Amino acid sequence: MDETRDRLLALKEDSVQGFTAYCGLEPVSLEPGRFVTRVTIRDCHLQQDGFVHAGVVATMADHTAGYAAYSLAPPDRRILTVEYKINFLVPASGDYLECRSRVIKPGKTLLVTESEVYAVRGETEALVAKAMLTMAAVPQDKVPVP
Amino acid sequence: MDETRDRLLALKEDSVQGFTAYCGLEPVSLEPGRFVTRVTIRDCHLQQDGFVHAGVVATMADHTAGYAAYSLAPPDRRILTVEYKINFLVPASGDYLECRSRVIKPGKTLLVTESEVYAVRGETEALVAKAMLTMAAVPQDKVPVP
Amino acid sequence: MDETRDRLLALKEDSVQGFTAYCGLEPVSLEPGRFVTRVTIRDCHLQQDGFVHAGVVATMADHTAGYAAYSLAPPDRRILTVEYKINFLVPASGDYLECRSRVIKPGKTLLVTESEVYAVRGETEALVAKAMLTMAAVPQDKVPVP
Amino acid sequence: MDETRDRLLALKEDSVQGFTAYCGLEPVSLEPGRFVTRVTIRDCHLQQDGFVHAGVVATMADHTAGYAAYSLAPPDRRILTVEYKINFLVPASGDYLECRSRVIKPGKTLLVTESEVYAVRGETEALVAKAMLTMAAVPQDKVPVP
Repeated sequence: MDETRDRLLALKEDSVQGFTAYCGLEPVSLEPGRFVTRVTIRDCHLQQDGFVHAGVVATMADHTAGYAAYSLAPPDRRILTVEYKINFLVPASGDYLECRSRVIKPGKTLLVTESEVYAVRGETEALVAKAMLTMAAVPQDKVPVP
Repeated sequence: MDETRDRLLALKEDSVQGFTAYCGLEPVSLEPGRFVTRVTIRDCHLQQDGFVHAGVVATMADHTAGYAAYSLAPPDRRILTVEYKINFLVPASGDYLECRSRVIKPGKTLLVTESEVYAVRGETEALVAKAMLTMAAVPQDKVPVP
Repeated sequence: MDETRDRLLALKEDSVQGFTAYCGLEPVSLEPGRFVTRVTIRDCHLQQDGFVHAGVVATMADHTAGYAAYSLAPPDRRILTVEYKINFLVPASGDYLECRSRVIKPGKTLLVTESEVYAVRGETEALVAKAMLTMAAVPQDKVPVP
Repeated sequence: MDETRDRLLALKEDSVQGFTAYCGLEPVSLEPGRFVTRVTIRDCHLQQDGFVHAGVVATMADHTAGYAAYSLAPPDRRILTVEYKINFLVPASGDYLECRSRVIKPGKTLLVTESEVYAVRGETEALVAKAMLTMAAVPQDKVPVP
């Protein structure tokens, strides 16, 4: 349906602004309930041991899951992250990070999601982190003003 | 003890580099097992609704807890984040964020920590997020090379 | 107010039934937003190394937080656990466990809570686990029928 | 290899004792890194709304993941749960619960695991909870005495 395709395209574009633009997030593919993003690794992403900072990994895991949730929510709802838990499986380094998120339990007000973040170097990829995240779909008029 | 004071000063300085420097993290105070940091809120920190992106909040919660753990670890150990869980209590906005982290269970190889992130606007502050984090103290020679 | 006191007494009584009765849960004190419970340690609570099973500790952490949330919810709402995270700080053993829970962020539909579980042996107590839990306050008529 | 088979059989048997025997846990199948268990739902497992208590679900998620980790650990190591996070997706009811756990990141000292708990009624099953758990493989002589 064209309407759905237009909404997905708009969400993809909307997903890169403010902090995620600053971090270099790039949307790869968005379909209902699933979103994939990438970040090319630069020096500004690293921590004290030369690995990608956990904060970059977590930001991708959270944001990508959030827009996967958006893709299933009614247009008049905004998505806010209620909470998440993330395990860092191996220190992350390589050419770029790819985050794959999906909604595992869609609900009207709460959506439970999962994100897997991979580090890709050349032809090989490694799962570097996995997260479970709870998202709230909040009516536009209930979202406070910053 | 001067040696302790020197190490704490060195850790405070070490805590701002790469991604945390990019995000504008400023150390406020570091004592054994406790660390406080700040980030002045700028446009590059925001998300799609004009609040501070959860990724900034989580990066502070993680990094500040990590260096609180560092302050209790032997000098030949590096701290890596094993995992954490964070709840976002209210959308964050204001002049700056302040993160207060402490070690609640020090161990030789695992340290359990807590972080509270406050948003400060003028004279008022609000608790915007709370996290529980597990840190690993890894011998320097066991940390892989990026 | 007598009405509040009556409701708290009713909730305290309500908190012990089914699985929590089977586990030997005893309410100690309930005030708005705070609940304390105990379990006297018996052989049926142990795991393969002779410590209290993490499942007993987690059940206390969850249930006690749930009723702390109940104490702040309107009477026509039921509390369901959305999710939680728990860290086990030391293996638990002793005479009894005491769980102290409190609501750190009350909300109309979501309440964020914390639980600390202590193992008490004679005069000494040790913090054995800490949890952060998200509770949903669901209107009675929206709770499905088992 | 017979030795492996014998060890898996011994672990399966070992998994039911103390609290898990009290809760009615039954091992279904154990292979390296994967364990499946069941609990037939009885009145003693229920909570105040007639659903299976989250404590039963969490106990299964934790214990089943723990023995999945055991199956990959050297025989002189004991498994202790460091921490976990669990999301409850729908209230649980039915004939029995089935928990399927697997190790997603085996390590020498830390093993990251996942558990999915299904409620089965007649021919249909529903995913009622999902957990991510961090397990520590502790040398037998470092485990404290209860």
